[in-house]
Amino acid sequence: MVIVMKESATEQHIQQATQKLESMGFSVSRIVGVNHSILGAVGDKRGVDPRELEILEGVERVLVITEPYKLASRAVKPQGSRLRIGAMDIGGDDVVLMAGPCAVEGEAEIHEVAQVVARSGALVLRGGAFKPRTSPYSFQGLGKQGLQYLRSAADEHGLLVATEVMDVTQVELVARYADILQIGARNMQNYNLLKEVGKTRRGVMLKRGFAATLEEWLMSAEYVMSEGNDQVILCERGIRSFGDHFRFLLDVSSVPALKERSHLPVIVDPSHAAGVRSKVPALARAGLAVGADGLIIEIHPHPERAVSDGPQALLPDQFFILVEELQRIARAMGKRFADNALRTANGQAT
Amino acid sequence: MVIVMKESATEQHIQQATQKLESMGFSVSRIVGVNHSILGAVGDKRGVDPRELEILEGVERVLVITEPYKLASRAVKPQGSRLRIGAMDIGGDDVVLMAGPCAVEGEAEIHEVAQVVARSGALVLRGGAFKPRTSPYSFQGLGKQGLQYLRSAADEHGLLVATEVMDVTQVELVARYADILQIGARNMQNYNLLKEVGKTRRGVMLKRGFAATLEEWLMSAEYVMSEGNDQVILCERGIRSFGDHFRFLLDVSSVPALKERSHLPVIVDPSHAAGVRSKVPALARAGLAVGADGLIIEIHPHPERAVSDGPQALLPDQFFILVEELQRIARAMGKRFADNALRTANGQAT
Amino acid sequence: MVIVMKESATEQHIQQATQKLESMGFSVSRIVGVNHSILGAVGDKRGVDPRELEILEGVERVLVITEPYKLASRAVKPQGSRLRIGAMDIGGDDVVLMAGPCAVEGEAEIHEVAQVVARSGALVLRGGAFKPRTSPYSFQGLGKQGLQYLRSAADEHGLLVATEVMDVTQVELVARYADILQIGARNMQNYNLLKEVGKTRRGVMLKRGFAATLEEWLMSAEYVMSEGNDQVILCERGIRSFGDHFRFLLDVSSVPALKERSHLPVIVDPSHAAGVRSKVPALARAGLAVGADGLIIEIHPHPERAVSDGPQALLPDQFFILVEELQRIARAMGKRFADNALRTANGQAT
Amino acid sequence: MVIVMKESATEQHIQQATQKLESMGFSVSRIVGVNHSILGAVGDKRGVDPRELEILEGVERVLVITEPYKLASRAVKPQGSRLRIGAMDIGGDDVVLMAGPCAVEGEAEIHEVAQVVARSGALVLRGGAFKPRTSPYSFQGLGKQGLQYLRSAADEHGLLVATEVMDVTQVELVARYADILQIGARNMQNYNLLKEVGKTRRGVMLKRGFAATLEEWLMSAEYVMSEGNDQVILCERGIRSFGDHFRFLLDVSSVPALKERSHLPVIVDPSHAAGVRSKVPALARAGLAVGADGLIIEIHPHPERAVSDGPQALLPDQFFILVEELQRIARAMGKRFADNALRTANGQAT
Repeated sequence: MVIVMKESATEQHIQQATQKLESMGFSVSRIVGVNHSILGAVGDKRGVDPRELEILEGVERVLVITEPYKLASRAVKPQGSRLRIGAMDIGGDDVVLMAGPCAVEGEAEIHEVAQVVARSGALVLRGGAFKPRTSPYSFQGLGKQGLQYLRSAADEHGLLVATEVMDVTQVELVARYADILQIGARNMQNYNLLKEVGKTRRGVMLKRGFAATLEEWLMSAEYVMSEGNDQVILCERGIRSFGDHFRFLLDVSSVPALKERSHLPVIVDPSHAAGVRSKVPALARAGLAVGADGLIIEIHPHPERAVSDGPQALLPDQFFILVEELQRIARAMGKRFADNALRTANGQAT
Repeated sequence: MVIVMKESATEQHIQQATQKLESMGFSVSRIVGVNHSILGAVGDKRGVDPRELEILEGVERVLVITEPYKLASRAVKPQGSRLRIGAMDIGGDDVVLMAGPCAVEGEAEIHEVAQVVARSGALVLRGGAFKPRTSPYSFQGLGKQGLQYLRSAADEHGLLVATEVMDVTQVELVARYADILQIGARNMQNYNLLKEVGKTRRGVMLKRGFAATLEEWLMSAEYVMSEGNDQVILCERGIRSFGDHFRFLLDVSSVPALKERSHLPVIVDPSHAAGVRSKVPALARAGLAVGADGLIIEIHPHPERAVSDGPQALLPDQFFILVEELQRIARAMGKRFADNALRTANGQAT
Repeated sequence: MVIVMKESATEQHIQQATQKLESMGFSVSRIVGVNHSILGAVGDKRGVDPRELEILEGVERVLVITEPYKLASRAVKPQGSRLRIGAMDIGGDDVVLMAGPCAVEGEAEIHEVAQVVARSGALVLRGGAFKPRTSPYSFQGLGKQGLQYLRSAADEHGLLVATEVMDVTQVELVARYADILQIGARNMQNYNLLKEVGKTRRGVMLKRGFAATLEEWLMSAEYVMSEGNDQVILCERGIRSFGDHFRFLLDVSSVPALKERSHLPVIVDPSHAAGVRSKVPALARAGLAVGADGLIIEIHPHPERAVSDGPQALLPDQFFILVEELQRIARAMGKRFADNALRTANGQAT
Repeated sequence: MVIVMKESATEQHIQQATQKLESMGFSVSRIVGVNHSILGAVGDKRGVDPRELEILEGVERVLVITEPYKLASRAVKPQGSRLRIGAMDIGGDDVVLMAGPCAVEGEAEIHEVAQVVARSGALVLRGGAFKPRTSPYSFQGLGKQGLQYLRSAADEHGLLVATEVMDVTQVELVARYADILQIGARNMQNYNLLKEVGKTRRGVMLKRGFAATLEEWLMSAEYVMSEGNDQVILCERGIRSFGDHFRFLLDVSSVPALKERSHLPVIVDPSHAAGVRSKVPALARAGLAVGADGLIIEIHPHPERAVSDGPQALLPDQFFILVEELQRIARAMGKRFADNALRTANGQAT
């Protein structure tokens, strides 16, 4: 930590701050500047609240040097994490595609979608069985049955399953059916839930809270990882901002910034940011071009009948066209889309 | 709903939109404007996703008329709710004060604080037994023991207890000890938790998520109320914004705006917005002056030893001075602070 | 400046950074931490772009210690500035009230308003002769004639004049008629305009740009002051944020924060933040209670005929009631409203 | 306009609102809903302040249908504008590249840059002769001499010139040397300046104010266009938001949204959003992929000696590599970069 003393700080103030730092376990060096004295506090202490020093008399500002996350930090794996979840590699050179409907609506419907997803080359089938809805009067998901439909549809086409878990009481159940447990944006700081999924051996897709800083987001990843699960994928899905031309403001700059700070893979969700399907392709291309390790896109064969978020779901034909364009862009960037052809060829699917 | 058709919309587009609306249960009137045709859709349908119409060809915009919340709406109780929780009235002419430490740290400590709280005239003792911390390596609260200390300290001084519940699995336990269940900002859209506290017969203090719109906030209140619990108090505690001169940006304008839209009482938390104690009094005065029904303020007799958020806790002497100033301002506004004198006179306290 | 080196920084990186700092005129001290080396650069150098160091190899972060503004800094006048503009004192114990219509609309109208303003005890008549309008098709102000009406109405009632100047070409003209030159939010970083009003000997009311940080705002004040004019009043008028319950989000926390950083007086404009008159009183009270040195409020005797911003103008009777309430709150805080009684007694008014 | 009456609105309230609307020149239709009556006001009236109706008794909300801009609206040119400025086409299938230093620093320096720009295939040389700097103590630009250097360097290499004009008093001078007049983000609502550049016959590059909505931005374009100049290019350069991982938050979603609302070309500036060169390529790719008609990128052959914004300037070699990647992505999207080869073949360059 670096403690900047006020111009008006007395020798006594400096002594007090020094003693406080030493009592916290730091060794202290002092630099006398033109206007300000500065104290350098050496010691690897995470979790110190800098405000404890800021409120001391004579202290102007406190600057924390060491980032508060350890396991999620790039310093741990400077070359980046390459996760293997089922047959999927994520975090390397390939780009991973995940797709599916907002909610699992029925057995026939999810099988129909799974076929589209598989045909596109995507590796993961997404779909919600437990749905966090803004209104208590809206459809809340099919629950366990939804999970079963989802699993069976995915298995039939050699796909992995990603689905949301809303609550500690659901973790065990969802982990039984899913390969990737999705933590929704509204739950990004539901710490008990984070710890609980950290105890599983499933992949965890951690969506960014819609007002979360990168540090808060990585601290939430740290909650999962501190329980022993390092299969964490970060998902940028847009933040809150002013303006009426988006549902959430897709922050593409988080992708290169996360790559500098953390070794974890990052994917982009263009669908929730766009809110309407006409803008999904443009945001999907931007997410890929900015350097994401994957994309998660909502699709629906009959969006006019969708029980949730139909308007932002792409139709299958739109989706196929988009995927082709994304593949071309990926190649232009020296990347390529992972394809589930190998896996299905290996007989994992029916 | 009002559907605005594009200038370029054809008669066929208008017919399709009309049929879609009728299939959703609306009756439709049509207004032919200079540039745009407009469809007025009559019907009391909450929960319709306006984007379902926005994606139809020829539709420019869809405007939802009916607000999505029912029970929380001012229309239900135009004169406002006056809640009675224990011996506390909130939502009427009086201003209610709640105070205490961020976290319950020990038996002696919380008794010491309770005495300060009672002496100030505040009605409610706050303090966390389960603490949502940004870092998994920080103190996470005393749990059940903390609840017991809190209850006993409050009882000794005739105070009510407000404390946070983080998780559905904690609701029953916390409800055994607390009069007011606090839902933290990070859990404002933890819908399962909202439903669970909705099933209790405790007061619920619902903090605003730090990127929540008023509509989202009131929808979360609706989740609680839809389970049969209408003892909901809204708590403005600051939102995320740019700038380095606050921890969270206290949005005082939410108070008069909530008063127009909802009948629920609204209190202000100046401590979490300020982040440091030097700014708490100014924000507390602003919260009172803007029309809040109460304030919740963090205090600590020895903040330098506090395990959490010590820097934003007022010292007892600062708190007493602030309360006197707040009382004068309240009187200047024709309000007064509720006092626990009556209750202590009834022999509940020492 | 403090330069934090990366964990991976080599000795050579540290040497390079040191040389760069020395070439910039700093003397450098080095602290070897557990994970990071830190360089303390001593020297009173404003205007150094910290990114010049951040891009050096091995550098993780650069922390600027000295704030970039000098003349506006609290360090210059720790007790705060008390400005005297005409017969008005601002920045001391009294609270100053300014009021008037959004735009000067005609001779009779502004005289009618001036009478209301004077009767309320306010010291300053505000009104726009040059109007920055979002639409090129809206009324753009009466120009020079508006200035003449404004001056004559103010003189008749012993009031000062505050009015907006939009452009360098208008400064001389407006300064002939006005006591206080208002720089609108959209012009807060129109640096040529700031320099030009800095050359006058009029008061300058500098409104906060609606996405400006406090540092940017104070740097704009510095532009004015660096030309020799230190009669600067800062005006908080709300910032842009998400949400639909305000026109701009009134940031009351800027007031105590500015008081810590700068010696300049701060006033609050509740009218532009509220956007509609029903919320003006609540925000005016909050602005006063949070510690502003004054308030500027829009009023109009016939708002339904106003050419601009009528909906946010208080009616005279609403204004008188509000002023009485504000006076009571000011007294409760140990302050009082300045009154123009003395000045009118001195024969300046009719 | 659509006026939504409150549930509690009486017949008299509805009559009053109807009369008000009729007095404003609208013809009124009425729809009786289940809870609310709705008035549809027909008439092509721009510039009506909806709050004039919102403050009437019984009115709940007012919804404006017609967008306030006319000339900038997509409705005027549904197929989009294809501007021709000098030999440059923008708004069609090609992508246009503009590049150069933040500030013109000297004759030799700008000639060196121009060579790099021309070699990359970019069409436009950018560089500031008048610099809006946050600090009055920073370098403010070379002024007229800078313009001369810029023009001569551009001419030598067959490039167009884009440079900032900060003030009405500079318009004539800058227009003598530049092909494209740049309006900076801080001046986006400097209405007098907008009108003045609207009177020239130069291209106008209008940067987005860093808290501007798309409507405000397009209204500023409307100011320029209402003076007869329709050569307007919009430039997204990032908005203010919370977070420390960008200088400004690049809002890629504005590009497809502007394409829906306006016929004007849109370019993206990744440099000011990134703030440091390491993130410029990622944001440049995202801007291209999201559908921009061009990019404007800061480069500098010796950024360590740059007087302004050196840290965000790409080095020539980085720039060439980026341009090649952008060309590949453009082709993958069915677009291509315009190249100045033709023009130089025509003998305009050395």
